[in-house]
Amino acid sequence: MNCILLPAANFSLANALIDAPEQIEHINKILGAQVGDTLKIGQLGGHLGTAIIDEMTSEQIQLGNVQLSLAPPPKLEVTVVLALPRPKVLRRLIMDMTALGVRDIVLINSYRTQKSYWQSPLLARLDEFVLEGLQQGVDTIAPRITLQKRFKPFVEDQLASLITNRAIVAHPYSELSLGQYLQQHSAYYSALQPQSSLPSVVCIGAEGGWIDYEIELLAGQGCQAVNIGRRVLRTEAAVNALLGQWLL
Amino acid sequence: MNCILLPAANFSLANALIDAPEQIEHINKILGAQVGDTLKIGQLGGHLGTAIIDEMTSEQIQLGNVQLSLAPPPKLEVTVVLALPRPKVLRRLIMDMTALGVRDIVLINSYRTQKSYWQSPLLARLDEFVLEGLQQGVDTIAPRITLQKRFKPFVEDQLASLITNRAIVAHPYSELSLGQYLQQHSAYYSALQPQSSLPSVVCIGAEGGWIDYEIELLAGQGCQAVNIGRRVLRTEAAVNALLGQWLL
Repeated sequence: MNCILLPAANFSLANALIDAPEQIEHINKILGAQVGDTLKIGQLGGHLGTAIIDEMTSEQIQLGNVQLSLAPPPKLEVTVVLALPRPKVLRRLIMDMTALGVRDIVLINSYRTQKSYWQSPLLARLDEFVLEGLQQGVDTIAPRITLQKRFKPFVEDQLASLITNRAIVAHPYSELSLGQYLQQHSAYYSALQPQSSLPSVVCIGAEGGWIDYEIELLAGQGCQAVNIGRRVLRTEAAVNALLGQWLL
Repeated sequence: MNCILLPAANFSLANALIDAPEQIEHINKILGAQVGDTLKIGQLGGHLGTAIIDEMTSEQIQLGNVQLSLAPPPKLEVTVVLALPRPKVLRRLIMDMTALGVRDIVLINSYRTQKSYWQSPLLARLDEFVLEGLQQGVDTIAPRITLQKRFKPFVEDQLASLITNRAIVAHPYSELSLGQYLQQHSAYYSALQPQSSLPSVVCIGAEGGWIDYEIELLAGQGCQAVNIGRRVLRTEAAVNALLGQWLL
């Protein structure tokens, strides 16, 4: 937690209330903060800033002198279409994509997504993982997350409308590397805006990647398959390594 | 495990023996492989290839028709100097850096590294985490890992000899972004070899990052501080996002 985010309802004038047990525990145990100390806070969906601890009990912390003047960092102009991963890694993936600033996340079914993953109770806790990611990345704006249990209808009927410039699908067996792809496209854009060579949609498989049928269906909607080398990475590592290009 | 790596001693002519419990469990439970099936294997420090399962017991798997003809992927020309992280994240960090192909890893003390981290029993198990990383990334060559319990002597006396071209230190409060840094340096190199603008040493802090004194000491040895945006990432996420630049 690099900042404490609170819903708008917890603010009134220059005061704010912390009542979430995880946040209170973090303030006590990790920060070791006391009455009079300054905290980095933010309003969910709003601005970032600071406040001073006025009162502390085991159940709530009252803040005063709330100053929220810093706008959150801009979102990354990218939609990540991610094959629903194992529940065990879902939390960290949502948290990392949120901290990185992904604007839109689509969790999609794939051949290698086990049906049981869609029954995971963790899917009901995405808001928690998003809050963790925002507090990690020091942002206030949650990504939009949508669930798509049917691969083919989503790809054929909805995907094209999400692609505002171009789209890629990460695929270790593609002959084209991401580096080659970015170089090809940077030639058409201003050298002063290297980010404009980045695609607006990135499709990432879960463990085991995509099957050929899925790659073909994605290609039919304009998704270029690209590799990031021969090495096979954990889904989390691949997501961060790929999205690292947006942080330059 | 995207391949099963065995030490040279387990090979003889066209045969090989799997006797590590984790590998046997993976072959049985995850792959569900049986006698006659082909496995992707590799020799630690050697080549990659395939073998056929000849015999299986609960304690060992005998392989025949061993063919090792594929060289491992090239290592990334980079040394990562990492502030020793919490034991909990050490395993995944070593595994990810290994899977990414980092050639050299230096685990170093820092102001925000707690002394107790150096007593962690996990530090005696780095070879295990490296093996996991190699089997994830499908590589056979382990990174060199060194431990440096004293920050200042290492930085002042040894760091410069590791810098074959340039060095950076990841620091969210730097005014220069990694993108600006790479653009500055790419001007001096061939556009056909964008990788040559990458530095040979990357210093990455643990949670909480580096303190000013450390940044100054690193700068004194030629490490340029760069940021990858305002957002604060988990150490694992930051390592993968940064090293993703080497995968292009």
